[in-house]
Amino acid sequence: MNSITTKDAIVYFNSDVYTELNTYIKTTEPSKIFVLVDTNTHDYCLPKFLERLESGDIVIEVMEMPNGEEHKTIDICKGVWEALSEYNADRKSLLINLGGGVVTDLGGFVASTYMRGIPYINIPTSLLAMVDASVGGKTGVDLGVLKNQVGVITEGKMVGIDTSFLDTLPQNEMVSGFAEMLKHGLIYDEKYWNTLTHLEKLDISDLDNLIHQSVIIKNDVVTSDPTEQGLRKILNFGHTLGHAIESYFLENDEKTTLLHGEAIAIGMILEAYLATKVCDLSDNELEIINEGILKTFSKVEITKTDQLQIVELLKYDKKNSHGVVKFVLLEAIGQPKIDCVATNKQISEAFDYYNN
Amino acid sequence: MNSITTKDAIVYFNSDVYTELNTYIKTTEPSKIFVLVDTNTHDYCLPKFLERLESGDIVIEVMEMPNGEEHKTIDICKGVWEALSEYNADRKSLLINLGGGVVTDLGGFVASTYMRGIPYINIPTSLLAMVDASVGGKTGVDLGVLKNQVGVITEGKMVGIDTSFLDTLPQNEMVSGFAEMLKHGLIYDEKYWNTLTHLEKLDISDLDNLIHQSVIIKNDVVTSDPTEQGLRKILNFGHTLGHAIESYFLENDEKTTLLHGEAIAIGMILEAYLATKVCDLSDNELEIINEGILKTFSKVEITKTDQLQIVELLKYDKKNSHGVVKFVLLEAIGQPKIDCVATNKQISEAFDYYNN
Repeated sequence: MNSITTKDAIVYFNSDVYTELNTYIKTTEPSKIFVLVDTNTHDYCLPKFLERLESGDIVIEVMEMPNGEEHKTIDICKGVWEALSEYNADRKSLLINLGGGVVTDLGGFVASTYMRGIPYINIPTSLLAMVDASVGGKTGVDLGVLKNQVGVITEGKMVGIDTSFLDTLPQNEMVSGFAEMLKHGLIYDEKYWNTLTHLEKLDISDLDNLIHQSVIIKNDVVTSDPTEQGLRKILNFGHTLGHAIESYFLENDEKTTLLHGEAIAIGMILEAYLATKVCDLSDNELEIINEGILKTFSKVEITKTDQLQIVELLKYDKKNSHGVVKFVLLEAIGQPKIDCVATNKQISEAFDYYNN
Repeated sequence: MNSITTKDAIVYFNSDVYTELNTYIKTTEPSKIFVLVDTNTHDYCLPKFLERLESGDIVIEVMEMPNGEEHKTIDICKGVWEALSEYNADRKSLLINLGGGVVTDLGGFVASTYMRGIPYINIPTSLLAMVDASVGGKTGVDLGVLKNQVGVITEGKMVGIDTSFLDTLPQNEMVSGFAEMLKHGLIYDEKYWNTLTHLEKLDISDLDNLIHQSVIIKNDVVTSDPTEQGLRKILNFGHTLGHAIESYFLENDEKTTLLHGEAIAIGMILEAYLATKVCDLSDNELEIINEGILKTFSKVEITKTDQLQIVELLKYDKKNSHGVVKFVLLEAIGQPKIDCVATNKQISEAFDYYNN
């Protein structure tokens, strides 16, 4: 598959990943190579990865962090910064992040700030990280319940997408990643949305091309607006309510934690509803979106009490300004609109629509 | 005094500071204004600053951190990030850092990473911060004993140098800042070095012009190499050993903590000695440097045991690569040379020279 050139990096696919990575190492001669993994990728991805890595005499140090969104914290960053110091990482050291979005987001932030910035490479191993976290340079960690509240925008030197890592990815994680792919269709390409929602099942042979297409869409959007002044905001479709839902379920002990994509799937339905009130999205298109998403995502119970607390969390959304919550909505499938405002009543109706 | 234009910001002086700051606020209409102070600047600088700030209807929140280098930590950052979240800071909020280098470095890092970056303005209140931390966009915090180990390079929107804040600065802090000014002479401008070392005393009437000159030198260097690939490294003269000495005295309970400039003063003498061995600095110039610095800075006792531990800390220096400690030394006064290497024996002799 063809590589994709982003602002400061190149995304390689499958066997190219190792050819290019090994060339990069040979050319740049890092002083040391650090590989950040989580408990899962340590077991399922690291052995295969190390087998294909050609590092010559360069020392490789593996750093392991616990698995899961609840560990995407400043405290874990502190541990990784300290580990880098202890192992004498210098500005010529290379950090390779081998894992899902938590590992690539956190590792990217650690690398971008350690000694004010060392080079890093992302090897996303989950579908979500491949299609979402792989390009755009958004790095960061959560602050309490607030998602990605602390971070920077700095691209790594290279992204390597080896889709064979998906062979060991649990089904619910596959589904979670699929939500971002659906989003790419909804905000950018109706045809792509149609393809995705008419798949009989997520087959690995189609998947490579679909991932490639999602990365192209995300890259198109990001390249035109790297610092999120305008167009890039469209990637937040489904995320204003989706992030609040994700935070709320993460924090609430009585709730089963939702995966990112599971929360975003709900957010997209809710925001599609808002789009029928605030923008020109037709009721028919809302139905198509609702059915297309629910084909893959089971409904989640959200009570009135939940709703109130979720709406309360909206005030922390990063797109807000001057106390106003700004949504990305849709004029039609494939036609997003940024900086939309909805009333609390409309948001409440959106939950009613989702629940019924 | 004329303003100085840096890569992304402008440095204003004295009364211009308030005119320009108030214009900036009026033009950009921040959603809220946050002022970060430490316990000292809260008492000595904040009232005067707020008196001259014209913010109209915009809410101002003051955040106070403890005073001193030992609080330049990730934990304090966490507190400030959390305070920003609690007070609903959004991407249109403005952070003003009112304080010495600890406040401007830490505040700059917090702003550059909160929600992946909000605008900030530095109002340095110490001599050190005015001449050193004010331009160049280096932000960051210490990690344990390691100075500025975590940070980013991002300039604020504006720097305001109001030298009247120096009226309440303790004498030892004035002396500390003077070390960086001496360094500017040594690495860039022999004439400036001569002026500084022939001052009868540090008189406030000369001082404004000298500060202005130091900012111009630092800005010249930084502008030519914003990400420290080459020339910018010259600003590290005296800092390789100086930082190690500062870290060692900070960490060691039996030692009185040295101010940054006090440690750098020692570092500059030691590194000038190395320059006579590794570069072409003459013994005569070494004497001139030694006397010029000791005219202002008292000698500090450094034992053989101290030396060993200080040398041990060199391995963490940010300019190192592949395990080699890289010094910035001098070919002559005003003529720096980067990427120099010295033996442990030469370093040990440098301490002997300093001690005798």
